[in-house]
Amino acid sequence: MSDVKDINLAEEGKNKIEWAYSQMPVLAEIRKRFQKEKPLKGVKIAACLHVTTETANLMLTLKAGGAQIALCASNPLSTQDDVAAALSKEIDVFAIKGEDNERYYKHINSVLDIKPDITMDDGADLVSTLHSKRKNLISNVIGGTEETTTGVIRLRAMERDGVLKYPIIAVNDAETKHMFDNYYGTGQSTIDGIIRATNILIAGKTFVVSGYGWCGKGVALRAKGMGANVVVTEVNPLRALQALMDGYQVMSMNEAAKIGDIFVTTTGNVDIIKKEHFLLMKDNAVVANSGHFNVEINIPELEAISKSKKKIRPFVDQYTLKNGRKINLLGEGRLINLAAAEGHPASVMDMSFANQALSVEYIVKNAKKLEKKVYKVPKEIDQEVAKLKLKCLGIEIDELSDRQKQYLESWKEGT
Amino acid sequence: MSDVKDINLAEEGKNKIEWAYSQMPVLAEIRKRFQKEKPLKGVKIAACLHVTTETANLMLTLKAGGAQIALCASNPLSTQDDVAAALSKEIDVFAIKGEDNERYYKHINSVLDIKPDITMDDGADLVSTLHSKRKNLISNVIGGTEETTTGVIRLRAMERDGVLKYPIIAVNDAETKHMFDNYYGTGQSTIDGIIRATNILIAGKTFVVSGYGWCGKGVALRAKGMGANVVVTEVNPLRALQALMDGYQVMSMNEAAKIGDIFVTTTGNVDIIKKEHFLLMKDNAVVANSGHFNVEINIPELEAISKSKKKIRPFVDQYTLKNGRKINLLGEGRLINLAAAEGHPASVMDMSFANQALSVEYIVKNAKKLEKKVYKVPKEIDQEVAKLKLKCLGIEIDELSDRQKQYLESWKEGT
Amino acid sequence: MSDVKDINLAEEGKNKIEWAYSQMPVLAEIRKRFQKEKPLKGVKIAACLHVTTETANLMLTLKAGGAQIALCASNPLSTQDDVAAALSKEIDVFAIKGEDNERYYKHINSVLDIKPDITMDDGADLVSTLHSKRKNLISNVIGGTEETTTGVIRLRAMERDGVLKYPIIAVNDAETKHMFDNYYGTGQSTIDGIIRATNILIAGKTFVVSGYGWCGKGVALRAKGMGANVVVTEVNPLRALQALMDGYQVMSMNEAAKIGDIFVTTTGNVDIIKKEHFLLMKDNAVVANSGHFNVEINIPELEAISKSKKKIRPFVDQYTLKNGRKINLLGEGRLINLAAAEGHPASVMDMSFANQALSVEYIVKNAKKLEKKVYKVPKEIDQEVAKLKLKCLGIEIDELSDRQKQYLESWKEGT
Amino acid sequence: MSDVKDINLAEEGKNKIEWAYSQMPVLAEIRKRFQKEKPLKGVKIAACLHVTTETANLMLTLKAGGAQIALCASNPLSTQDDVAAALSKEIDVFAIKGEDNERYYKHINSVLDIKPDITMDDGADLVSTLHSKRKNLISNVIGGTEETTTGVIRLRAMERDGVLKYPIIAVNDAETKHMFDNYYGTGQSTIDGIIRATNILIAGKTFVVSGYGWCGKGVALRAKGMGANVVVTEVNPLRALQALMDGYQVMSMNEAAKIGDIFVTTTGNVDIIKKEHFLLMKDNAVVANSGHFNVEINIPELEAISKSKKKIRPFVDQYTLKNGRKINLLGEGRLINLAAAEGHPASVMDMSFANQALSVEYIVKNAKKLEKKVYKVPKEIDQEVAKLKLKCLGIEIDELSDRQKQYLESWKEGT
Repeated sequence: MSDVKDINLAEEGKNKIEWAYSQMPVLAEIRKRFQKEKPLKGVKIAACLHVTTETANLMLTLKAGGAQIALCASNPLSTQDDVAAALSKEIDVFAIKGEDNERYYKHINSVLDIKPDITMDDGADLVSTLHSKRKNLISNVIGGTEETTTGVIRLRAMERDGVLKYPIIAVNDAETKHMFDNYYGTGQSTIDGIIRATNILIAGKTFVVSGYGWCGKGVALRAKGMGANVVVTEVNPLRALQALMDGYQVMSMNEAAKIGDIFVTTTGNVDIIKKEHFLLMKDNAVVANSGHFNVEINIPELEAISKSKKKIRPFVDQYTLKNGRKINLLGEGRLINLAAAEGHPASVMDMSFANQALSVEYIVKNAKKLEKKVYKVPKEIDQEVAKLKLKCLGIEIDELSDRQKQYLESWKEGT
Repeated sequence: MSDVKDINLAEEGKNKIEWAYSQMPVLAEIRKRFQKEKPLKGVKIAACLHVTTETANLMLTLKAGGAQIALCASNPLSTQDDVAAALSKEIDVFAIKGEDNERYYKHINSVLDIKPDITMDDGADLVSTLHSKRKNLISNVIGGTEETTTGVIRLRAMERDGVLKYPIIAVNDAETKHMFDNYYGTGQSTIDGIIRATNILIAGKTFVVSGYGWCGKGVALRAKGMGANVVVTEVNPLRALQALMDGYQVMSMNEAAKIGDIFVTTTGNVDIIKKEHFLLMKDNAVVANSGHFNVEINIPELEAISKSKKKIRPFVDQYTLKNGRKINLLGEGRLINLAAAEGHPASVMDMSFANQALSVEYIVKNAKKLEKKVYKVPKEIDQEVAKLKLKCLGIEIDELSDRQKQYLESWKEGT
Repeated sequence: MSDVKDINLAEEGKNKIEWAYSQMPVLAEIRKRFQKEKPLKGVKIAACLHVTTETANLMLTLKAGGAQIALCASNPLSTQDDVAAALSKEIDVFAIKGEDNERYYKHINSVLDIKPDITMDDGADLVSTLHSKRKNLISNVIGGTEETTTGVIRLRAMERDGVLKYPIIAVNDAETKHMFDNYYGTGQSTIDGIIRATNILIAGKTFVVSGYGWCGKGVALRAKGMGANVVVTEVNPLRALQALMDGYQVMSMNEAAKIGDIFVTTTGNVDIIKKEHFLLMKDNAVVANSGHFNVEINIPELEAISKSKKKIRPFVDQYTLKNGRKINLLGEGRLINLAAAEGHPASVMDMSFANQALSVEYIVKNAKKLEKKVYKVPKEIDQEVAKLKLKCLGIEIDELSDRQKQYLESWKEGT
Repeated sequence: MSDVKDINLAEEGKNKIEWAYSQMPVLAEIRKRFQKEKPLKGVKIAACLHVTTETANLMLTLKAGGAQIALCASNPLSTQDDVAAALSKEIDVFAIKGEDNERYYKHINSVLDIKPDITMDDGADLVSTLHSKRKNLISNVIGGTEETTTGVIRLRAMERDGVLKYPIIAVNDAETKHMFDNYYGTGQSTIDGIIRATNILIAGKTFVVSGYGWCGKGVALRAKGMGANVVVTEVNPLRALQALMDGYQVMSMNEAAKIGDIFVTTTGNVDIIKKEHFLLMKDNAVVANSGHFNVEINIPELEAISKSKKKIRPFVDQYTLKNGRKINLLGEGRLINLAAAEGHPASVMDMSFANQALSVEYIVKNAKKLEKKVYKVPKEIDQEVAKLKLKCLGIEIDELSDRQKQYLESWKEGT
């Protein structure tokens, strides 16, 4: 019942999934327990996530817990076809790299056909479709999880507007998720995606990062670590100050557009780079997006001011503007780390997906107590994931002594 | 009515206060407004803060707003005597560098003699004295501010125990405070204090940082920036993981003690370095504290295992252990950045003290609405300080367009 | 007369060559001049270089100068087949990615069949074959160039033993070559190769670099920039000290083997990682080489202590040792940046190959004056390349005034 | 027969010298041997060096070897008066911090009165005086050493002009000297000097470094490590490219002058910052020099365009220009690390001065073989110092195996 590109890629995909699993010890611990306890027995899960080796391991963990699962892609370009093939031997998978918008939504609907008890989303396209086109299925759903900042923003807006119909756990808000996945994960994989797409030297380049949230901070840090001269643009004064004190140049995009060699957007907002900026850019500028949706770079405006376009490398579309200058758009403006590279490394997704697995378990156990709200990941889950990770890495840390605990509680001891 | 070391140091102190003021443009903007509006007219303030050039400028700003002020030191070693002298010509000052514990508390009491309407504290020694020894004065007080993490922890414990008698604004919790002062400020000034005290080369040293909160993160980053090989110890698994992913070695203090050349504590807790650790250290190890109180390093235990002690440089006490090895304790275990250097640089205190000044104004205007609780700095004050700082630095950033604001509100647009 | 994998890849290869050319402005300037002046008219060149987009642009530049060229690969794994296809429409190319040792040497011989006036080598396999198996061709040769450290070491040994039969210019020794290509180029591309091969997160890993020459320094710097905890092993005490002062841990390989997660060799020597080290490694360790030849990691010894081997990802051979632990060898121990990634970025090869082109021109013009020695790149060429690069980047720097020149010459002015 | 500021400072000075000695294990090893072997018995040394704790330990080492020594300062502002006092109990010392030019040269002459066999110089003022005003003493001299880049440049000019009258060993050229002292030493101590002088926050500042030799590279690296946005100016295209690839902005001083908050010169040349640059600077800019002589900043031109000048902190002269803007000159334009801080840390001077001590011994043993030239430090001495340092630090590194040595010699093994 799956729809994948080529089932013959399954063997290769299986090896890659295993490789990733060797980097995901926390999820492995959880899988072992799930296998024994079967906490998800009989639960139907509709999942809309990037179809990568790490996601495959999450799916296999949920399955080990007793769940029945259907999975589609949360982005048309992020599917790894060999992984999809391998995984389709275990669960239903609907995902083909490069699928068009129509098929993308058809796949979302195929996944919903499972009549889910629980949704797992990454960007809220699944939840949004469920709430607009497949309302009849909602009454069945006891809860859901959401993986990413962008999705959480959309879901909070739904909650605010009173249209959210079941509880959602914002996995993104777990500290063991966004402080690691968004920062270390996005940082490395964005640089990785840009280099794979272009093979350009980062050292000596002026590298413009838009947005200085966890993702932007990670990208800026790694660009600096590779020898770039980093420029940050922001709309939030506090973050702008942080960027400045972190040693970066801070300016408006109008100024940055003139001096940048490479541009990366990480804002979760639209129109970060648009017509007026393209027109200011140097010849041969490279433009990429690392935010969830391909709206941060205004591609229609880029098309409108161009006289020609050429795919010069697999993930590089070179636009020649009417002013004669060339602009290189990477990965069609979609998240560059998934479009041109392999997404976040397994060891960082290990913690994000441990939170996912434990949050699903939590929903199953606590469904009755939960309201139609966006919830944080319970503190205990977050702490548990961190402890498990350290244990797997073989790292021992100190523990508070009784005397220390007591000191922290007291207000009487001073100078 | 002041008690300072030597009034003849006033001229030198005045120049240094002016120099700092040139680095504090945000406070300068506020002072200008205060001078015109006199929002603190008739308000009596008892302040217990490190007596530095930056504090002097805060005091002068409050005075410009109409307040009557008495100031004492929040740490016996942190007073700059020339600054105290200069400032004593404008307000009452009770602070002498190196004063003993008795005089330290005598000075706190002198300050309380003003019968304050408002308290400003840094570490909660003033508030604690007021709540235990000078209870009769409490009824007068309409509110207070607290500058530091340690103080906020003590005050929250008081609130929890139901003994806090008036509202306090935790200035430390402002993002424009702790993200800058604790991180960039402590980072630089701790390294500065260690180098001034010892003149040792940081490059190539194994540098152990205990605690990976904002202060510890700042110290670790700057130690790395100076070429050290940094080791972090923590009790919190999440922070331990962050330290690891930031490229540091993470281990227990028992392990770190064996390999460290330089140790710095930034935890806000007791007994971080104690007997068992001293006994493991290499010959000639250097030990310093950057936390608020001198309890993080257990000095009595160090004394007990030593056969001799010698002041080998102004801020270096060299202990010779019975095992023959030497351990160098800096600044008597007090905050090294204030003991051996000049505390946080003015440009970072600019934001912290802008929050202080605006919080005092806020208390005066809103005293009736406030309960006997520890409050956060109002969001508007925090944002205002960040905007003002960027403006003073001449940095322009982007603003959200209507289209962008609308996009952030909406949940319907997806892939 | 070429031997390439698939001529149908030519179109794709052509685009990639063009893309690289857009990053090679210095070579472009030289090509323009060569086209006009034809300084290499009638010169036959046998070239043995990594067959990459950058090499393609060097070949086209030499051809523009009037040369007739035959090119083979300088490493069996480093050929980009699409580039070879595209280039074979312009010159003779003998290179197929993954060719076996026999074909590798057959290709070297095919290239020599051109009866070269000049040799261009990268690792000295071509020169070495010419001096041992094809001696009859030597009398024709007026000179050669050598690209890499390893080759220069071999050629200096030949000079020392009195067997070098014609002059060679050591392009590697140009400052605009080894300070950039070996440092910034190897640094980025080695990290790139490891990430493409494994998709592992560098942050938080213990990353062991063997050798702290220009290549090792570059790799260590970038690993640190990606968040690793870097360990360096060396045999040279001075370099070991540098590594220490640069903030890295320094130890013997016996110690490093126990704690490393990732190992990279950059020494130009044999047996850097061998049996005794493999046996000490942690489960799942990753081992790669970034030196010229695949001798730095002793693979036969690894095979001997393993009970099985599995290709788990395209460039990852996972060995299971008899002790049960797994070791992942990348790219069969060949230069990881060429095996799993695309070699040095074009913008850094721009300078290296500008030195190559100008050195070939220099040999043609000065053949009679040169002896059977290894020569440095003439200072003027080096300076010319640096100036040209800055000009192409649009960067203006200061020039010495007459007063400054005079001051530098004088010894009479003092305190 | 000494001339020091205050002999009563001797006790404090003695402690500081001991402290430094604890950081100088290599020199300590040499002192132990000298004490036994007395290789300098009867040798008279005239030394002109910065009178710091480290120099004191070098002097005591030479004395232990049997030498008779007179020491003066190599810079009027770099003397530590307490150290001079303590040292004057062991050897003749002529040095007072802040001495005027006349007394500076009087002290040089006092030192020459010893009728030296050997000169030790730092900047070549001693050698230059000897060659111009005290020619009669030259015939006695068998050799000398020179510590710094600037001095070596002057001496090479003398050699070139045929006026150098005895052999000099350029200690600066030892790899264990300039790669450590000039890079790590100047890097840290320059930042240290600036912070002690001003207490300004480096993070977020635009920090301009002029000159990208070893000293400039070190200063730029540490400024970046403290959070600055670093700009480099250079006259050498190759170094300018290096700075660019290291992630810094590179531009002319005319451009840098407009945006810099802090300026540091490290060029060894005159007129780096002059009238035209001062006039472009922002209000409150900070200007310092880290090169040997106070000629890099053109102070007379600064005076000429100023309407007033005020010492606002001990090492800060604040000039108010006629255009109303303020410029803060640190340490009167003299080497900021010695003027406002304590010079290079002991552990880095350990290697520099080990080279000095061993070079003096070398001169005594080899005087007859040496010509009137500037010599490099013999390779064996350089290697010996590095090995000794690693040994003292307890670091073990690998050694070449026979198989590895053989491989490095051979040219026959290839792919």
